Amino acid sequence: MHRCEIIAQQTDLPGKICRTFCSPAMESAVRWVQTWMNQAGMDVEIDAACNTIGRSANDERPALLIGSHIDSVPNGGRYDGALGVMFGIAAAEMFRGRIDSLPLSIHAIAFSEEEGVRYRSPYIGSRALANCFDEALLDRVDDEGYSCRSVMQQFSRKSFDAANVALQPSRYIGFFEPHIEQGPVLEQAGLTVGIVDGIAGQTRATARFVGRASHAGTTPMNLRYDAMAAAAEWILEVEKYACQIPGLVATVGYCSVTPNVPNVIAGDVAVRLDTRHLNDVVRRKAASDLRVHGEQIAQRRKLNFIWENCEEQPAVQMDAKLTSSMESACIRSGQPIHHMPSGAGHDAVIMSRIMPTSMLFLRCKGGISHHPDESVDVKDVEVALRVMYEWIEELCRPTAPAAGVLP
Amino acid sequence: MHRCEIIAQQTDLPGKICRTFCSPAMESAVRWVQTWMNQAGMDVEIDAACNTIGRSANDERPALLIGSHIDSVPNGGRYDGALGVMFGIAAAEMFRGRIDSLPLSIHAIAFSEEEGVRYRSPYIGSRALANCFDEALLDRVDDEGYSCRSVMQQFSRKSFDAANVALQPSRYIGFFEPHIEQGPVLEQAGLTVGIVDGIAGQTRATARFVGRASHAGTTPMNLRYDAMAAAAEWILEVEKYACQIPGLVATVGYCSVTPNVPNVIAGDVAVRLDTRHLNDVVRRKAASDLRVHGEQIAQRRKLNFIWENCEEQPAVQMDAKLTSSMESACIRSGQPIHHMPSGAGHDAVIMSRIMPTSMLFLRCKGGISHHPDESVDVKDVEVALRVMYEWIEELCRPTAPAAGVLP
Repeated sequence: MHRCEIIAQQTDLPGKICRTFCSPAMESAVRWVQTWMNQAGMDVEIDAACNTIGRSANDERPALLIGSHIDSVPNGGRYDGALGVMFGIAAAEMFRGRIDSLPLSIHAIAFSEEEGVRYRSPYIGSRALANCFDEALLDRVDDEGYSCRSVMQQFSRKSFDAANVALQPSRYIGFFEPHIEQGPVLEQAGLTVGIVDGIAGQTRATARFVGRASHAGTTPMNLRYDAMAAAAEWILEVEKYACQIPGLVATVGYCSVTPNVPNVIAGDVAVRLDTRHLNDVVRRKAASDLRVHGEQIAQRRKLNFIWENCEEQPAVQMDAKLTSSMESACIRSGQPIHHMPSGAGHDAVIMSRIMPTSMLFLRCKGGISHHPDESVDVKDVEVALRVMYEWIEELCRPTAPAAGVLP
Repeated sequence: MHRCEIIAQQTDLPGKICRTFCSPAMESAVRWVQTWMNQAGMDVEIDAACNTIGRSANDERPALLIGSHIDSVPNGGRYDGALGVMFGIAAAEMFRGRIDSLPLSIHAIAFSEEEGVRYRSPYIGSRALANCFDEALLDRVDDEGYSCRSVMQQFSRKSFDAANVALQPSRYIGFFEPHIEQGPVLEQAGLTVGIVDGIAGQTRATARFVGRASHAGTTPMNLRYDAMAAAAEWILEVEKYACQIPGLVATVGYCSVTPNVPNVIAGDVAVRLDTRHLNDVVRRKAASDLRVHGEQIAQRRKLNFIWENCEEQPAVQMDAKLTSSMESACIRSGQPIHHMPSGAGHDAVIMSRIMPTSMLFLRCKGGISHHPDESVDVKDVEVALRVMYEWIEELCRPTAPAAGVLP
């Protein structure tokens, strides 16, 4: 908690928490991370993608990679990302005294970029490690005109070389990302930690209702083609639909009205749908059903309906064996086993492409994240550290369910 | 129609129709109006409020004032306002040959300002004539820093003097404003003209739903305080309510969402209500009922609800006697009698405060106004001119229902 506070003080915006990819604040945060990693007995490398990786002394053994991202959104909170980085360092500290007798090596990681703020593209750090980094991004420039390539080179003092940065999956048992929940579920259920089953897939789409802008005073109700009323009807359908399907979330958080003046009936309203579920079939059906609802509403009201699929991300399942070991760890720590999906994306999405991956969620106050009010309880952190400790012990046991390349 | 085309060509925005209060385009438009008024046998005055008033030769008799406004919105149409100005001139032309034998004098007017574009305050011309002009407006400046006082003085070459500009109501039989409908009702009903009973009163209010912004992926449906869904529910209530009450219109044409990003549940949504009815009691009850609906929706969803009344304009009734004469004129012209409210404001609202006032609506294509596509049929204009002619004849008959000070 104290270390998260120190990291929070390294900021690009005085008085706010803001660590942008490769900014001076990130540089000084990484310097702290490096120091703590060294103190935990790790060798530290900053790779060409600006990830900070600490490796404990027994590096020749199959490694367990633990951590999260070190960047933050502008005006963010203390724990999103940073807390997971501290867990990686804590794991190395916990086992430092008997590291030579462990069948695995502990690697701690601070991914350089997850939020996608500076170059409008998330997961720069983990994509490079998973060898799925689109190098075209290197030439993209930020708002001040600095290319991604130049800031990475200046930060890491290395030239980007994809093959060199990429991890060798065969060397890893798996990746573990502890993270605050960023939602209210654990708090509502009175639980400290939740085992993440997977990361929900996501469909983003724009639904546009095109009616006819006309005078709010002179157009009787029965002669209107009101795009706002049509969109309102659809927004309620979206809510109703999602409430009926367990685990589904569907949100309209964006609305653009033309001409958006009080005395003109809206002629054109575009709203954006964000729907997520751990099961891709359920999610795709939801998007498709909601599209049909929109078409029907438009047809009944004699409006035009334009649907545009903006983004689609499939769900990602966490590794079953690592997850099963996490269950044992919860039991050993006296914690109830609670499985849950992650509704938000994480570096774990990318890392799961190359190695067995698992996540543990930690209760956060009010479900608030990406905000200065982000808050976790020190006792909850203690519990989560205990679960992590038991989980690593579990993975070290010869009888434990084998995951990855554990001998 | 040809004159409207000429007026449309006097514009502040090349390629578009735009005559702003006291602009060069308005000046050249007024020069045309002046010429036509002179040709119709009228003496012309440009008063200190920049209204253009033509008075036929028998000015000592009680006067019938006919006209509308000469200004337009930016990128407006050919007929809103301008057509009514041409009707005043046409009336003088129709009766020019026997003006000495008429018991009334015909005055034609081009009000200087109705749209409220330049100084964000409508009805400058008619307010001055009706002696209800707020002189504080004289010191208001436009976007370029020119005061209302200075542009009026430069245009009229007169210093503003409220008492001097104000009309003497006792000298008038009444005011008549012919205007395009600006709505689709006449066209839908297959009618050419409509007798305006009155101008609907209006309530404008802001309804704000305040919930909690949270992550669209991590917040389950049952733990949301979604301001967008609440607003959508209310928008549908507004529509449903208005559909049930004859003559009522209620519109939500404006919506502001915070933070308005697709992956965040809206924390704060403000929508604006515009509701109008010819009966103030009905309108006030509508606004009050809709406010209660909003409160109930917010309460059920555990959101906060903030209501702000922004504007309230009472309904204005047209003069019963002038309107009754208009019915006779319709019959004499072979037109069905169709009464209707005006949902939009007009100079007639202001003029009705000082003299008997009536309006005639003329069918316009698709109900479109304030747009380059504004269109009227030349045959409809012919019919409306005929109705006006018969109406003036009716007012001249000794047996006609007396209105105003007709001897």
